[in-house]
Amino acid sequence: MSLSLVIGNKNYSSWSFRPWFYLKHHGIEFEEIRIPLYQEESKAKILQYSPSGKVPVLLDGELRVWDSLAILEYLAERFPQTQGWPDDFAERALARSLAAEMHSGFTALRTYCGMNCRRTPAAKHLPEGVQPDIDRIGEIWQQCRRRHGKDGAWLFGRFGIVDAMYAPVAFRFHSYQLPTNPEAEAYVQTVLHSPEAQAWIEAGKQESEVISAFE
Amino acid sequence: MSLSLVIGNKNYSSWSFRPWFYLKHHGIEFEEIRIPLYQEESKAKILQYSPSGKVPVLLDGELRVWDSLAILEYLAERFPQTQGWPDDFAERALARSLAAEMHSGFTALRTYCGMNCRRTPAAKHLPEGVQPDIDRIGEIWQQCRRRHGKDGAWLFGRFGIVDAMYAPVAFRFHSYQLPTNPEAEAYVQTVLHSPEAQAWIEAGKQESEVISAFE
Repeated sequence: MSLSLVIGNKNYSSWSFRPWFYLKHHGIEFEEIRIPLYQEESKAKILQYSPSGKVPVLLDGELRVWDSLAILEYLAERFPQTQGWPDDFAERALARSLAAEMHSGFTALRTYCGMNCRRTPAAKHLPEGVQPDIDRIGEIWQQCRRRHGKDGAWLFGRFGIVDAMYAPVAFRFHSYQLPTNPEAEAYVQTVLHSPEAQAWIEAGKQESEVISAFE
Repeated sequence: MSLSLVIGNKNYSSWSFRPWFYLKHHGIEFEEIRIPLYQEESKAKILQYSPSGKVPVLLDGELRVWDSLAILEYLAERFPQTQGWPDDFAERALARSLAAEMHSGFTALRTYCGMNCRRTPAAKHLPEGVQPDIDRIGEIWQQCRRRHGKDGAWLFGRFGIVDAMYAPVAFRFHSYQLPTNPEAEAYVQTVLHSPEAQAWIEAGKQESEVISAFE
């Protein structure tokens, strides 16, 4: 087996963190290939690996799998012991709905509260359009914790693809001190205190690239 | 069984078309619930069905499944005879990558070439940023047709989730007369001439709502 994950900056690339978190959480060994983004040669370097020209991309032998959600679906199939989705049919449908909602949505939050591991946590003035995203995410986390909290700290009890998808959003709730409900706040803490998140954040802080628009 | 699909305007809502196309193509019966978008009460009406406040949403008895990609994954599981993904493991990984690339990307194309079934096909002046999307989509369709064209007209030979995801983009290539390669153009024609696409487009043309920004 030869598994490699091509990622961007740890400080800024939230899409990269999602499959990285999943792999690390499950102790799956892989080579990490980091391509600093926002540089003149970034796109050309990424295109060597990724047909879409974007990170992350997973290299599994000859096979290339790209886009965070497709990589996570792939990993759940490739390593069935990781149990990426809930076993129950209806629960799995709900988990996939929430993962897809994250994948295609929350544009306002993603635009104005970019992931920045190195940011000193502080509130920021946000345009009106961001509040519905903050509210909806808080509602999702609250509902999941109420339904599954007794079984563990993750959104569907055990760690899964939904957690990998929402984890970088938890980083943002912390970095921008977004106000939310107690259950959602508890979920933010679960993510932040996981050893994998801690390791990623520490590595992000050490990176030399600084993109002023995201500071 | 009681299956309902909540959709928006047929003329404009490309996300709604995706699961609708999949259901119709496979002859799966469902009730269609249409909520006209862009009206004062639209959001409240959608929220009666969809936790995310967006269409489409699938109602399967008590179960609600939302977001186009999650609905399609669900339908592939719920109706295994529809064979939503390729059987081969590596092919399935590629198909999922392409579906996810569509789901999270092509923002410039989606912004400047909104789906509009009733538009008289004509070129439009487009910002520079749209061309890479047009090129990449043309490349995807070309590569798929070259690999699978001998087995049928769809992107992976037989009709699948990837086709449902890209079909509204084929509408746009036609409506905005986007220049592309011959294989991609042939795929646009495959989609446009399918009976389900024809029925959707005809229904879209009959709708009374006109959103001037999209004309």
